[in-house]
Amino acid sequence: MTSETSHTLQPLDQDILDKMHAYWRAANYLSVGQIYLYDNPLLKQPLQASHIKPRLLGHWGTTPGLNFIYVHLNRAIKQRDLNMIYIAGPGHGGPALVANTYLEGSYSETYPEISEDEAGLKRLFKQFSFPGGVPSHVAPETPGSIHEGGELGYALSHAYGAAFDNPDLVVACVVGDGEAETGALATSWHSNKFLNPEHDGAVLPILHLNGYKIASPTVLARIPNDELEALFYGYGYTPYFVEGDDPKQMHQLMAATLDKAMEQIRHIQNDAREHGVHLRPRWPMIILRSPKGWTGPEEVDGKKTEGTFRSHQVPMGDMDKEGHVEILNKWMQSYRPEELFDDSGKLKAELAALAPEGDRRMGANPHANGGQLLQDLALPDFRDYAVEVKKPGATKGEATRVMGKFLRDVMQKNLDAKNFRLFSPDENNSNRWQDVLDVTGRTWMGEMIPGDDKLSKDGRVMEMLSEHQCQGWLEGYLLTGRHGFFSCYEAFIHIIDSMFNQHAKWLKICNQIPWRKPIASLNYLLSSHVWRQDHNGFSHQDPGFIDHVVNKKAEVVRVYLPPDANTLLSVTDHCLRSRNYVNVVVAGKQASPQWLDMESAVKHCTAGIGVWEWASNDNGQTPDLVMACCGDVPTMETLAAVKLLNMFVPELKVRVINVVDLMKLQSPSEHPHGLEEDAFDDLFTQDKPIIFAYHGYPMLIHRLTYRRTNHKNLHVHGFKEEGTTTTPFDMAVINGLDRFHLMENAVKNLHELPSDKVSEIELFIQQKLAEHHEYIREHGQDLPEIRDWQWNG
Amino acid sequence: MTSETSHTLQPLDQDILDKMHAYWRAANYLSVGQIYLYDNPLLKQPLQASHIKPRLLGHWGTTPGLNFIYVHLNRAIKQRDLNMIYIAGPGHGGPALVANTYLEGSYSETYPEISEDEAGLKRLFKQFSFPGGVPSHVAPETPGSIHEGGELGYALSHAYGAAFDNPDLVVACVVGDGEAETGALATSWHSNKFLNPEHDGAVLPILHLNGYKIASPTVLARIPNDELEALFYGYGYTPYFVEGDDPKQMHQLMAATLDKAMEQIRHIQNDAREHGVHLRPRWPMIILRSPKGWTGPEEVDGKKTEGTFRSHQVPMGDMDKEGHVEILNKWMQSYRPEELFDDSGKLKAELAALAPEGDRRMGANPHANGGQLLQDLALPDFRDYAVEVKKPGATKGEATRVMGKFLRDVMQKNLDAKNFRLFSPDENNSNRWQDVLDVTGRTWMGEMIPGDDKLSKDGRVMEMLSEHQCQGWLEGYLLTGRHGFFSCYEAFIHIIDSMFNQHAKWLKICNQIPWRKPIASLNYLLSSHVWRQDHNGFSHQDPGFIDHVVNKKAEVVRVYLPPDANTLLSVTDHCLRSRNYVNVVVAGKQASPQWLDMESAVKHCTAGIGVWEWASNDNGQTPDLVMACCGDVPTMETLAAVKLLNMFVPELKVRVINVVDLMKLQSPSEHPHGLEEDAFDDLFTQDKPIIFAYHGYPMLIHRLTYRRTNHKNLHVHGFKEEGTTTTPFDMAVINGLDRFHLMENAVKNLHELPSDKVSEIELFIQQKLAEHHEYIREHGQDLPEIRDWQWNG
Repeated sequence: MTSETSHTLQPLDQDILDKMHAYWRAANYLSVGQIYLYDNPLLKQPLQASHIKPRLLGHWGTTPGLNFIYVHLNRAIKQRDLNMIYIAGPGHGGPALVANTYLEGSYSETYPEISEDEAGLKRLFKQFSFPGGVPSHVAPETPGSIHEGGELGYALSHAYGAAFDNPDLVVACVVGDGEAETGALATSWHSNKFLNPEHDGAVLPILHLNGYKIASPTVLARIPNDELEALFYGYGYTPYFVEGDDPKQMHQLMAATLDKAMEQIRHIQNDAREHGVHLRPRWPMIILRSPKGWTGPEEVDGKKTEGTFRSHQVPMGDMDKEGHVEILNKWMQSYRPEELFDDSGKLKAELAALAPEGDRRMGANPHANGGQLLQDLALPDFRDYAVEVKKPGATKGEATRVMGKFLRDVMQKNLDAKNFRLFSPDENNSNRWQDVLDVTGRTWMGEMIPGDDKLSKDGRVMEMLSEHQCQGWLEGYLLTGRHGFFSCYEAFIHIIDSMFNQHAKWLKICNQIPWRKPIASLNYLLSSHVWRQDHNGFSHQDPGFIDHVVNKKAEVVRVYLPPDANTLLSVTDHCLRSRNYVNVVVAGKQASPQWLDMESAVKHCTAGIGVWEWASNDNGQTPDLVMACCGDVPTMETLAAVKLLNMFVPELKVRVINVVDLMKLQSPSEHPHGLEEDAFDDLFTQDKPIIFAYHGYPMLIHRLTYRRTNHKNLHVHGFKEEGTTTTPFDMAVINGLDRFHLMENAVKNLHELPSDKVSEIELFIQQKLAEHHEYIREHGQDLPEIRDWQWNG
Repeated sequence: MTSETSHTLQPLDQDILDKMHAYWRAANYLSVGQIYLYDNPLLKQPLQASHIKPRLLGHWGTTPGLNFIYVHLNRAIKQRDLNMIYIAGPGHGGPALVANTYLEGSYSETYPEISEDEAGLKRLFKQFSFPGGVPSHVAPETPGSIHEGGELGYALSHAYGAAFDNPDLVVACVVGDGEAETGALATSWHSNKFLNPEHDGAVLPILHLNGYKIASPTVLARIPNDELEALFYGYGYTPYFVEGDDPKQMHQLMAATLDKAMEQIRHIQNDAREHGVHLRPRWPMIILRSPKGWTGPEEVDGKKTEGTFRSHQVPMGDMDKEGHVEILNKWMQSYRPEELFDDSGKLKAELAALAPEGDRRMGANPHANGGQLLQDLALPDFRDYAVEVKKPGATKGEATRVMGKFLRDVMQKNLDAKNFRLFSPDENNSNRWQDVLDVTGRTWMGEMIPGDDKLSKDGRVMEMLSEHQCQGWLEGYLLTGRHGFFSCYEAFIHIIDSMFNQHAKWLKICNQIPWRKPIASLNYLLSSHVWRQDHNGFSHQDPGFIDHVVNKKAEVVRVYLPPDANTLLSVTDHCLRSRNYVNVVVAGKQASPQWLDMESAVKHCTAGIGVWEWASNDNGQTPDLVMACCGDVPTMETLAAVKLLNMFVPELKVRVINVVDLMKLQSPSEHPHGLEEDAFDDLFTQDKPIIFAYHGYPMLIHRLTYRRTNHKNLHVHGFKEEGTTTTPFDMAVINGLDRFHLMENAVKNLHELPSDKVSEIELFIQQKLAEHHEYIREHGQDLPEIRDWQWNG
């Protein structure tokens, strides 16, 4: 194990050192100004209470560190002509990224009204955390950002996601020591086992030991350096320490360390690209230890502030207090604004010269506005992968396996473009996408041994047993203008509920920002779903992610439950072409009846919802009963129930409706996909009973349809949170989603049926369920007539 | 850095070595039997296809390793009279824990029909992953378990949670190398910075490097040992390696290593307890590297199986295939069952003697059935903390700060019992529970420096910036019979959505298991909520956890939204007394109007929902309009709207309803708290407009009430996913939850109002909103009349 510090190196001559320090002061000045000032941005007049915002909001603590890093990265970029973006894990340091992009000019180019003069400065300050202005966090509004950082933990996954397949890119990623305590961040250090120096870019993690969170110290700031060093060596990095509080010394140290790290990266890439070195390299990382609220007031109201948790947000929240205005004045004057900005309020030219130019500026790098770089995927015709369905239900197929064949060829067609990857927490094959591995391997830079299956340093299937990593990598990959699909066990996708939230919020805001170009949608395949968890059981049974998703803005979320392979193909194609959505696709992997030939599937998916006439006997007349279904298992059970009803009550007119696009159910006022009220009434009638078999929690269907005319006659069957390791059909039975319970409920709601008919059917159902229970308790599998059941059209 | 292996030590003499090996074989035999056999449990007859289950389900891969560890822990327990429980991170190894608790006798004591004879063996085998039987994972049904492990990542947090305040307990925690890749697990190694050897127990982590997940290798199995060693040194442990595949050598090595680890633990505890050593110790951990599917078939169908991913589930899934029955037969015979079990099928006495006795058996340890040990908290009278409310709205108060005072004294009263802790991702003070720190500190075993705030090695407030850790620790603490409360920012509680799921599922199953005694409820305070995220903004605004929670079984979830401090006190008291629930409490921390004096608060909370007569003017008659509210900000806005309505239309009869217990809204058929239909109609009328102001997503209210008579007249206002950093009142405005929008919607639905009155009100609203917008854009804060608004009863 080695680690080095660079105390003896002095790479900066006095002139550049002075200028860099001044640039840093300028960034700090602008940061403090954003938090506090309403007016008098250059302090040309004596500071008064009236110049200060009435509500002081924001986070100072991490900001000077973020500024310090930015000025040093600028130097590295200029010196080496680097293609670099900056990920600010401590998103609370919003003022820093705004300040720096303003100083380098990219902010004013993006927002011309925030001009490079005194008036622009005033607007810059005022807008921060101000109604109608910009948020206090690094956000979509911030040029150069692909990472919000409001919810902590995902900086490094985003960084690696951005670096994959971007060989020239260097992603500088600041990780806060608070964030470093989160689970997602703690495992994301291992991303280096999935980064190939030959054709991926580099990530330079900078762990910023600020020392404190909101109130408590941080774990990593309070373990000895030998543990820290060992930890990051163990994670596979060479850690370099930059520690101190004297700015001039720290500038030299940081510059020397950054030089070393960039050299190491160059060597690693050179070895891989020119000399065929294929071992996993030991990448550099930097541990920067500096005081929280560095350069801020040392003491406020007799309490130590700089270097303590009291610097976390606004060091002096209450400016009415005696002496606080003067503290702020001294603090801001300590940066000597008159040396930084000319009379007009523009950054002095010799300082402005420190920033990179054009797209090399981190606030203007196109990778941070990935839509600019986005190329459409080359897609084969999904119809070519159709399962032959001569008549509905006559063949069986594994829907996700068929999807895997399509994805294999999508992968193949885009191998050269290097802009498509699949992500999964080790469930790629379990979810039946194994054919993809015929054209690309599983990404793996770790040791390989005989017996390993389809590992490859160049693989494009990314599997790590961390849903957080899969989601974070994919987000980073999409946000920098590429494409992907995330396959996950349905139950465990809840692990990234909160990450989905943040991404959906990001997309929602981007829709309101013209300069943010649309990016590829975030696509989920949820398989190994609640109804087929044969190896696992109750812990693996949870269809609630859909409920979670539909709370987000309708304009960014889509949910599809294709009932078979051909509809899944059609939906998949659609998702891969769509932009700025989160698409959730739920589909089973087990052999199941196939209902629609490709032509019908395309038509059905285009409509999103429709009558299955071949399964209905209402012949276009008003039906007596509507049997609706959404999801593969509910569809099968519904059709089986319809068959039984046809048998017992042939004269009963039953209409079968299948839903692929869940959002069709909602009113058009609530979701752009929502079916018009008349069309809905035409389908579901205004007054006939509807038995609705749904894949997930029944409440969701009520919630989506509560405004619909016939809602009072809607009876939904779905997952009632009853589960265990049992047979597939028994899972349906214990939740009342099976054909018998569906039929029973239909009969219960058909008030015109003669009572002897009702009794006959009820008796039949009781017998069948008893037979089922007896058989499975004895044989451990479903009755042959259930296993072999076929629709017989 | 040091690490040691113990190659040279041979602590086991031949006799004990042979016996331990035999015991291990017995456990492996029983494990294989569970996965495969339907009959012929002792292989007394030649094995035939008919003896084999028709559906083969389960996970073999991790099982022999779990068995190996169990037999060695048994030896350690007996030798040192240890009080030990076993947490099986690889929950997929269900057969191992069932096998071992069966061998030690605790299983048959718990389930007498699974007797210690051939008939019992047959039932033991058959029930596994069989309908009506036991799940394939370690589960609530498994004696000795507090950890399901279906969803991976929480083993070590659970282990530490169990160890806190249990000085005599040793929690052996097996961490799978798949699980080790998850975020939650990766950060949970740092739990050692929060464990005090003086009065907490010990955790012995055993990282089991099996090598593979479902299909891919694991990260930690494919980094060199020097990185592994450094990583765990960096995490603060001394790692000991136990590596190999030769069972006899491995037994010696494991025994020697376990001896060393137990000695080290004893020394650490002795130093802290007897010699006043207060430094954070370096705890031992074991890295066990053994083949996946160890002792299983070397090869199946020409493919290497033992030691590869093909052993993950059932090595031969298809027993119809040529030769598979014979492979199974050879495999099972390789354990030589005739040497292990006597003729009756009972484990031979000399082997049974290896197991600990009574409660020392890990399957019978009362800590793993925490309800057995649970003591009620000593609670002060919450009424003593009442905020004085002479008339509604006359005083302001910070609800969660008042709650903090109550919790301070709860803490105080139970300091000696050491059975109450608070958990928070560094948000204890931010959520205003700081008074608790007057009686106990923040738990901290890391370095302390001047300027730190209320850190203490003996602290009972646990803060780490990881919601996963807070949740995992708390679960472990509760499951071993103690009490706690988790305070979290509302938006970020989604980080543990999936952990909540698993805990709720655990509780649901426990309700069906008579021997599982009730445990204290898992209590959440969600504060810093969506309506008051002044420092943050959109990323911090998400009230959807409630939606997620109510998908779980009604019998285990409760949701409370007290509108002020006194109601919050009453709810808090109730939560601390309740058992086997998950209680979600949402309350604000900002200074807000106080509505109810303590007597009224208790009455209101007991009812859970009710008319606020002092705010209504229907005087017990049928109202013209119902204004309902749930949550603190919605309550304030509703009351303000009512005031405006009173002013404009004094003759209008308005009824104000406040909801504390959200589940009151649901039908009694769906939730035990649900209001009876008649009572609901009495409150909400059958046909009058209801304007419902709700804290969260409006859809939830529709979903809970869609069956109610007057649902068609229900208009819900809530969070519409519109947010940013803006003023408190503007947050309400942009989501339409403010007094003006509430009033506007009321007027819109009061069809009898004269049109000139309607126009007058609409004009007023437009003016007010314009005034608001103008003011906040200019001043950055709300209009004085909004900020200073007071109910004037």
